[in-house]
Amino acid sequence: MSLLLPLLGCADVAAIFADDGRLQAMLDFEAALAAAEAKLGVIPADAAAAIAAECRVDRLDLAGFADDAAQAGNLAIPLVKRLTARVAARDQAAARFVHWGATSQDAIDTGLVLQLRSALDAIEGELARLADALAALAVAHKRTVLVGRTWLQQALPITFGLKAAGWLDGVERHRARLRAVRPRLFVLQFGGAAGSLASLGERGLAVAEALAGELELGLPDLPWHGQRDRFAELGALFGLVTGSLGKIARDLSLLMQTEIGEAFEPAGTGRGGSSTMPHKRNPVAAAAVLAAATRAPGLVATLMAAMVQEHERGLGGWHAEWVVLPELAILTAGALTQTADVVAGLELDTARMRANLDITHGLIMAEAVTMALGAALGRLEAHHLVEAACRRAIAERRHLRDVLAAEPAVAARLDAAALDHLFDPTNYLGVAEALIDRVLAARP
Amino acid sequence: MSLLLPLLGCADVAAIFADDGRLQAMLDFEAALAAAEAKLGVIPADAAAAIAAECRVDRLDLAGFADDAAQAGNLAIPLVKRLTARVAARDQAAARFVHWGATSQDAIDTGLVLQLRSALDAIEGELARLADALAALAVAHKRTVLVGRTWLQQALPITFGLKAAGWLDGVERHRARLRAVRPRLFVLQFGGAAGSLASLGERGLAVAEALAGELELGLPDLPWHGQRDRFAELGALFGLVTGSLGKIARDLSLLMQTEIGEAFEPAGTGRGGSSTMPHKRNPVAAAAVLAAATRAPGLVATLMAAMVQEHERGLGGWHAEWVVLPELAILTAGALTQTADVVAGLELDTARMRANLDITHGLIMAEAVTMALGAALGRLEAHHLVEAACRRAIAERRHLRDVLAAEPAVAARLDAAALDHLFDPTNYLGVAEALIDRVLAARP
Amino acid sequence: MSLLLPLLGCADVAAIFADDGRLQAMLDFEAALAAAEAKLGVIPADAAAAIAAECRVDRLDLAGFADDAAQAGNLAIPLVKRLTARVAARDQAAARFVHWGATSQDAIDTGLVLQLRSALDAIEGELARLADALAALAVAHKRTVLVGRTWLQQALPITFGLKAAGWLDGVERHRARLRAVRPRLFVLQFGGAAGSLASLGERGLAVAEALAGELELGLPDLPWHGQRDRFAELGALFGLVTGSLGKIARDLSLLMQTEIGEAFEPAGTGRGGSSTMPHKRNPVAAAAVLAAATRAPGLVATLMAAMVQEHERGLGGWHAEWVVLPELAILTAGALTQTADVVAGLELDTARMRANLDITHGLIMAEAVTMALGAALGRLEAHHLVEAACRRAIAERRHLRDVLAAEPAVAARLDAAALDHLFDPTNYLGVAEALIDRVLAARP
Amino acid sequence: MSLLLPLLGCADVAAIFADDGRLQAMLDFEAALAAAEAKLGVIPADAAAAIAAECRVDRLDLAGFADDAAQAGNLAIPLVKRLTARVAARDQAAARFVHWGATSQDAIDTGLVLQLRSALDAIEGELARLADALAALAVAHKRTVLVGRTWLQQALPITFGLKAAGWLDGVERHRARLRAVRPRLFVLQFGGAAGSLASLGERGLAVAEALAGELELGLPDLPWHGQRDRFAELGALFGLVTGSLGKIARDLSLLMQTEIGEAFEPAGTGRGGSSTMPHKRNPVAAAAVLAAATRAPGLVATLMAAMVQEHERGLGGWHAEWVVLPELAILTAGALTQTADVVAGLELDTARMRANLDITHGLIMAEAVTMALGAALGRLEAHHLVEAACRRAIAERRHLRDVLAAEPAVAARLDAAALDHLFDPTNYLGVAEALIDRVLAARP
Repeated sequence: MSLLLPLLGCADVAAIFADDGRLQAMLDFEAALAAAEAKLGVIPADAAAAIAAECRVDRLDLAGFADDAAQAGNLAIPLVKRLTARVAARDQAAARFVHWGATSQDAIDTGLVLQLRSALDAIEGELARLADALAALAVAHKRTVLVGRTWLQQALPITFGLKAAGWLDGVERHRARLRAVRPRLFVLQFGGAAGSLASLGERGLAVAEALAGELELGLPDLPWHGQRDRFAELGALFGLVTGSLGKIARDLSLLMQTEIGEAFEPAGTGRGGSSTMPHKRNPVAAAAVLAAATRAPGLVATLMAAMVQEHERGLGGWHAEWVVLPELAILTAGALTQTADVVAGLELDTARMRANLDITHGLIMAEAVTMALGAALGRLEAHHLVEAACRRAIAERRHLRDVLAAEPAVAARLDAAALDHLFDPTNYLGVAEALIDRVLAARP
Repeated sequence: MSLLLPLLGCADVAAIFADDGRLQAMLDFEAALAAAEAKLGVIPADAAAAIAAECRVDRLDLAGFADDAAQAGNLAIPLVKRLTARVAARDQAAARFVHWGATSQDAIDTGLVLQLRSALDAIEGELARLADALAALAVAHKRTVLVGRTWLQQALPITFGLKAAGWLDGVERHRARLRAVRPRLFVLQFGGAAGSLASLGERGLAVAEALAGELELGLPDLPWHGQRDRFAELGALFGLVTGSLGKIARDLSLLMQTEIGEAFEPAGTGRGGSSTMPHKRNPVAAAAVLAAATRAPGLVATLMAAMVQEHERGLGGWHAEWVVLPELAILTAGALTQTADVVAGLELDTARMRANLDITHGLIMAEAVTMALGAALGRLEAHHLVEAACRRAIAERRHLRDVLAAEPAVAARLDAAALDHLFDPTNYLGVAEALIDRVLAARP
Repeated sequence: MSLLLPLLGCADVAAIFADDGRLQAMLDFEAALAAAEAKLGVIPADAAAAIAAECRVDRLDLAGFADDAAQAGNLAIPLVKRLTARVAARDQAAARFVHWGATSQDAIDTGLVLQLRSALDAIEGELARLADALAALAVAHKRTVLVGRTWLQQALPITFGLKAAGWLDGVERHRARLRAVRPRLFVLQFGGAAGSLASLGERGLAVAEALAGELELGLPDLPWHGQRDRFAELGALFGLVTGSLGKIARDLSLLMQTEIGEAFEPAGTGRGGSSTMPHKRNPVAAAAVLAAATRAPGLVATLMAAMVQEHERGLGGWHAEWVVLPELAILTAGALTQTADVVAGLELDTARMRANLDITHGLIMAEAVTMALGAALGRLEAHHLVEAACRRAIAERRHLRDVLAAEPAVAARLDAAALDHLFDPTNYLGVAEALIDRVLAARP
Repeated sequence: MSLLLPLLGCADVAAIFADDGRLQAMLDFEAALAAAEAKLGVIPADAAAAIAAECRVDRLDLAGFADDAAQAGNLAIPLVKRLTARVAARDQAAARFVHWGATSQDAIDTGLVLQLRSALDAIEGELARLADALAALAVAHKRTVLVGRTWLQQALPITFGLKAAGWLDGVERHRARLRAVRPRLFVLQFGGAAGSLASLGERGLAVAEALAGELELGLPDLPWHGQRDRFAELGALFGLVTGSLGKIARDLSLLMQTEIGEAFEPAGTGRGGSSTMPHKRNPVAAAAVLAAATRAPGLVATLMAAMVQEHERGLGGWHAEWVVLPELAILTAGALTQTADVVAGLELDTARMRANLDITHGLIMAEAVTMALGAALGRLEAHHLVEAACRRAIAERRHLRDVLAAEPAVAARLDAAALDHLFDPTNYLGVAEALIDRVLAARP
């Protein structure tokens, strides 16, 4: 789906998981394994050098590779076979030490961990960019009033800064989660055929430690061929991120509706336009992000379902991870980039926000007015009076302020200026600003 | 994931949905649209000819295409733009009639329908091949006795033919479902910008009918830009097929366990073997099929979640379909091919099947013995007697037949030949053969 | 979740799957089995009568039932044990014939089929009610113009009847699918311990046929203990239905937005209101339906994942169905009832629809105007002229009609009346009415 | 599904989320809100006392509650209405202060947080019990040799302690994750109608802080009505736990197969037995746990899909959480209890483990022999020699040891004792014991 990649994914992260990237990550494992074993005297230093020299994907002959993989059941077997042939051509003796003590899954899992580390670097970078852009919005619009909407109905006035702070708050939680998952996830996989490192005798652990060091990965307490919670956890975090991005996209696309028109994705040549419908400004990025948020949950579910793997190394569940985890990383990265771009270039129509605050002819201020009148009239009295005024305003299609102004009980106590003050949405924002400040202050 | 494609998917079906295939299917729509409109005099015949001449993916300049698609939000906009430029170069006047009366989604959805028709042809072909192979197994092994297993425990003897007939029965239901879905699914999408075909005035329906005819698609009652049940239904059928294939793969991989050893995937050079573990014969195809069965449910769920699309044309849900439906088709086709290959070349060890029938030392025949003794001893008496004998057989690790033979109440009524007959699993197969015949007779 | 049941489910369908309903359905199987076997002389007629007399859930002692089920692994084992005790108390000899030749899964699966038949009767009834209500809307609003919206942006005028016809079209497809699935789904499950009906000797098939007749179920070609596509298919159909209902709910909730205000759920005492926010009219039913549409995909995925069951009777997958299939049926029925109620009582504000058509100051008519001017000015000329006029209208915040009227090239050819006609959305509806008629005519 | 609850869920955790528990948790919120507001002088102390006195679910009149909830769209509205009526009966003035400054979602979300805290206490308790039981197994079976299996094929010898340590390792990671999520999850929800706490003026934050203190919850940076990552994250953690439990259940059920017979769920009266199949010992708990692992992924996906909520408070996504999160908690708790019980009472047949190690007639020791011979013969020579011996052993159905012993090149270098040592699986366990010790040492 390369033509769809910039729209529905992320080309950079996709490259990490492309065939070349996948094979190179496994070759990096093989080279590091040889180096670690040479360091400990498990294999000759010459052999390690020969192996390292050939662990480059551009030196491999990939003819027939895919079919061999289909026969073997994974990519590591034909890879090791080809690597061994290359090493043998260089140094016959060294060839016997290729992949020494390892099993296919060691190379494949560790390779995937290395790829995920690259992908996570990119994703965390974009998350930081998004967080900064959201923080800037929150600061810039601390007092930009718009209507808050619940159940897709206008509720009370809030500020756009509060809205942005809410988005930001979730994004910062995701950043914290991803930071926390790194030591759990970025660990070596190395156990040999059945997880005991039997073919390395008593040297197994020492080799594992040295190998982890070579790759700058953590050393897990034991191999995890059959325990897949690390990968499923990362998938779940991607799912959470994408869910929050979907929420932002949903909000923005709703604000972009022709009838609301309060926010717009940044314009660009040919971006979201239509030649026959000149008024349209399609939320193109929002669509892409919502597509990602629609796809991620099913992929997360797959990774969790795939955790039920058999015995020391499983059958099918493991295979499913190979495609699903990259797909999740790619769509998460894509949705992030789209969202960060949109937030960074977001166009707001604050005049329209103010105009939309008056659509209900003052009804959204009913709660504010009731609270204010309560002090003068008594709570219950104020409540009944405002309720009746609202009914009248709706029936007679008049502004609530005018209905109330004509009410003797109100007029006796509140003059026009007082009423104007009450009906000014900027005077009914509660602690919105303090909440924004809390979110900003909590940023790492 | 091209290197993984033959293992976890199907290269032929993947080609249908590759970039080229995707664009060509949309170009086929554009050419057919022009032809239909020319036939009805809506556009000049010359224009249609010029358009048709350029509707070939190899004539398009794809430079920058992916980025343009990301800006536009879909593939149709840059495609129509490039097509228009090509047509203009050939015939300036004709260029104005490219895509006449259509909207992007018309081209994209109809293109996808055309691709799915090709994919379904391939999938139904493989389903037929699988069904034939299963039927051959059912016929060949009508009387091949093995133990039936429930809750992963040995239960009673059955035949391998009955097992194969059970698999076949499900496959035939899938074939019936896919046949039934064709008229519902293979229909034109054509509605113009908002589904009313407004820009074609009163000619909209006539054009639609002619266009459907050109493409050999059905004419739906109305455009279905926002009603996505057709695509979700097909996805669900793919999910059902893959589930049944997963069941076959699960069964076969369990039968292939070293400790059971009753069935084996066909051998092949380098297939499922291990150089350091010479006894291994990994169920490589089963792993691939189980991976597909693990992935399909999440993808089906995505298509269903994506049905909630907004108004006349939606946002995000539609975009999700573009990747998910092809992915489902590809993995379904791959799982089918793997299963058909395995079933067609399945190796059975009938001696091992017989040996495994005796692992419980006759206990799996307890029900049979109870039923037989009931006639002679009375039901209740027979039940108590066999129950006690079973307990003794387990405690003393003796064969149930020997325990019963030593029992005076039994010996008085059943001689050795009668006991042998009772303990012969081939004499306790119920109506297995008749059931197999029913399944075979019901084949279309 | 009984307090949430009327909101998020359907009390009537929930009752079908409640403990009592579940047990009674299994007892119905047991009674029918005894009757069928008596009819064929497999068991004594007296025994069948005694069994039938006790096959009533209100006669069972349920003390300790749940714990016994947890020990046994299913509900049938403690049920048969209790039933046998009751029958024994009435007729000692008859007790031996309870559950004769059957296995637990026979009773549980057939019981579930019987429950699903009841549930489907209810669901199809509600689907018919919804279809009628939608058809009435389509008829009543064939010419009620509102704006069609794509990508959440105003596109072109359509009619509310066309919108309703689109919803209806999907609902009618679901009805056809459910009708088609009945013969495949409503079949007996009866195979004995391993699917061969071994304990009934040669009489197995005859008993199965008679038993199917007793229960008015179809006789499948063979038992399907391990082939679960029937249940997963029904689950998928529920998912499809719920997806389409979610689409309707999404559309209605968008139309109910304060800023759009074109449609409203029927009012009712305390329905969707807020005492402090008098202007709110929350789309309560839409929220419930969208919740169902959010939940269904995951449940469908579960049923598909559960298809991978082991050998003759599986482990875990089967157990998952017991909870998930009822849950899907209950939420589908609930979403249907909510949708049918809303559609039947839907309130439309056609004045607001007309007002919203003018929000873009004529821009949504640009396509119409271009098509019309093309005849007079030539296509290309018309296109450029309208495009320029649109840009000016947007920049100067004027109505497109006024900009065009001031354009000499236009004024020379179109007088005020002609322009008014062009800008009247009712004159740009394409074949909307014919499409509605097609959908109505296709109803069964 | 009460009769299925002990089998497929957990009655204790289910009780937390039952109607009563749900309402009481919201009432706890209301009482704490009144107390906090009284403390700060926002409402009179008398009012708070009156409210607190009525905040008990057993004092509410629940007649018509479910229908009122269906009308209102949630449980909080009818709850507050009934609570207000009760308070009014006690103290008319106090009634006006019920729910002061809060919105329905504040009560519902905070109530759910309180319930989840109780559920998590129970779940973490069971996780600790399971971890202890697994640690005990790992210690007890450090040197209990059984065959390691990969791809469902015998691979190399390992120890049961290593297997248990692998399970334990995952469980400890889950415990760490759940500990880490507590401060993120167990926070107050309190924002008023649109998240700004507007009706409390400048006192909003102070009230929020006091309220959080009353409930012993954290104070979030801002209300999270529309940011649902906390709930989805917890759901994901439940999914991860259940996945790991499913893996244990899968392994145990495979070990319980009649043909393998190495492990057994604890026996109990009527547990997993069959009267007509006396040899069966069904893995009843494994089935229940696998059912949970089949169901959890779809529910997690639902929570992630539900994150895309609209604006300040959403529509549908929120409603979905009410049912799905409890369901996940209940099935996770149930699967945990079943697993902990099974692990604590697990029966192992170590004799069978040893016997199964010899099924391949020495082939699983081929790697060990090759490594050992390499020292004497040279690596390549050793490899070829063993490979040839394996082929012969398979073809002639002889033990690999005997084939090798008859080989002059081997016999010259290894005597019978040396060969015996090589073929003793306990001598080829690599660093299994050290790995177990690492896992045990890492326990908190």
